[in-house]
Amino acid sequence: MDLVTIADVRAAAEDVAGAVVRTPLVPTLWDDELWLKPESLQPVGSFKLRGATHAVARLDPAARSRGVVTHSSGNHGQALAYAARTFGVPCTVVVPEGAPRVKVERMRALGADVRLVPPARRLVEAERIVADTGATLVPPFDHPWIIAGQGTIGLEIVADLPDVDVVLVPVGGGGLSAGVATAVKALRPSAAVIGVEPLLAADARDSLAAGEVVVWEVERTYRTCADGLRTNLSELTLAHLRDRLDGIVTVAEDEILAATGRLLREARLVAEPSGAVALAARLFHRDALPPGRTVAVVTGGNADPHVLGPLLG
Amino acid sequence: MDLVTIADVRAAAEDVAGAVVRTPLVPTLWDDELWLKPESLQPVGSFKLRGATHAVARLDPAARSRGVVTHSSGNHGQALAYAARTFGVPCTVVVPEGAPRVKVERMRALGADVRLVPPARRLVEAERIVADTGATLVPPFDHPWIIAGQGTIGLEIVADLPDVDVVLVPVGGGGLSAGVATAVKALRPSAAVIGVEPLLAADARDSLAAGEVVVWEVERTYRTCADGLRTNLSELTLAHLRDRLDGIVTVAEDEILAATGRLLREARLVAEPSGAVALAARLFHRDALPPGRTVAVVTGGNADPHVLGPLLG
Repeated sequence: MDLVTIADVRAAAEDVAGAVVRTPLVPTLWDDELWLKPESLQPVGSFKLRGATHAVARLDPAARSRGVVTHSSGNHGQALAYAARTFGVPCTVVVPEGAPRVKVERMRALGADVRLVPPARRLVEAERIVADTGATLVPPFDHPWIIAGQGTIGLEIVADLPDVDVVLVPVGGGGLSAGVATAVKALRPSAAVIGVEPLLAADARDSLAAGEVVVWEVERTYRTCADGLRTNLSELTLAHLRDRLDGIVTVAEDEILAATGRLLREARLVAEPSGAVALAARLFHRDALPPGRTVAVVTGGNADPHVLGPLLG
Repeated sequence: MDLVTIADVRAAAEDVAGAVVRTPLVPTLWDDELWLKPESLQPVGSFKLRGATHAVARLDPAARSRGVVTHSSGNHGQALAYAARTFGVPCTVVVPEGAPRVKVERMRALGADVRLVPPARRLVEAERIVADTGATLVPPFDHPWIIAGQGTIGLEIVADLPDVDVVLVPVGGGGLSAGVATAVKALRPSAAVIGVEPLLAADARDSLAAGEVVVWEVERTYRTCADGLRTNLSELTLAHLRDRLDGIVTVAEDEILAATGRLLREARLVAEPSGAVALAARLFHRDALPPGRTVAVVTGGNADPHVLGPLLG
């Protein structure tokens, strides 16, 4: 299997420059060796904008005119709608009936054609649109363009902190962690890239241990509050993680919420629980991590207000 | 009176590079011609770090060894403590008895010597320390080094958005607005720099109209929730604003809180009310502003949790 290369990530960085926010590294007041990478500042509130923007940028003019499609109603759907608007490309998002109104309205405000279908028909409907219109299906993580786009975060980390020792990155479907590990291990091989996932959705830990994709059914993963990390790996992302990731740390639910609260109160960042797991590893599992200058990627900030209220303290 | 020049601001940018966060411009989802400059991301939570860092950097080795002093217990006090630690300089902060414990503890954690005194004795005590130790008093806004340091925000705005049309900047003591206007008007004279202040602390509006510093007593200004903007101008900052500011807009209390809530819910930024007034002007007084590509400076994020809770929505 061909893996994404540092050259691919560098090309992605050129493609997304100006269309995504170049997020800074933010020192923390409570830990002299910790910096945050706040991807929650992307205009759609998550790092997903990088991969989606890169995927749309890579389409040739004919493909652009036929448009893009996705069946993710979460951060990737919003990201694709925004990226498509940036390049003037038609975008259709297939959304399960019952999805939060605010998400649907945001995607429509970005110009996306939102199609509400029964949950079980999402994938079929997206594929029907592709067959009918010739639009390109842009998946949330299982594609080299997406991995390379997310990897631009790793490029920026090493550019801003050349002597970084540890990069902590959340693992859901594995597109972000695959991309970041690709960039960081190429540019600074001595740095450790550690994946972080909820103990209640530890499929990446199990997959790496087994050497093959281990699927956690939705009945298990729905228990974690980190809803962006319930996804399983793909063959492609697992291949990257086996080659390039230095380890996986799992975090408990109370640790995730405590880290979300820390970001809100002491780093002035609104993070969603999925976006706070990397910090949770640094706060609560430091003995399981290599020492040294550490970056925690804060992946997104589309949090439910009901989660944040009690964390204001 | 000698005013700060663009060369002073450029020199300040070199002095603070690496010691403050190079904040990005963040597009908003709800306004295609609006970008936020989130100074709330500075590790102490406000733009004050820029001026304080520049002031400490400018001290010669002998002065550095004698230390720095301030009598601000707010954002400037924390900023000076952080800046002094960066350069290994002793720092004393004179704080009125009754100041919030969390602020005192944060400054102590940064290594500052915090002296609690009766409120009326703050200035006298700070001056006594200067007389006894030879330490340098670093004021929160009334000094060319502070103005030049805050002006680095203007440099970055024009670098990141060269065709900016309007910059909206909160006005308290006037150090930030003086510095930003200095940089922006020098680099892009066609851009308008507009100050924003609470209607309940509109001393800068009155001072500009009168052509001299008009003092609003604390009995009037304490009514605004934007506690960072209760300060009056100085002769030095007024001279800059008369020369370089294109206008002043005032905002109401409910508008300030609505803008704070918008930042929290839709830009994923924790802002304090003082940090949201520039956005409030764009949201509620657009007819009083020039049209075009607009940057609102979000100056700080040290908000009281009791203010934020009801704004989560």
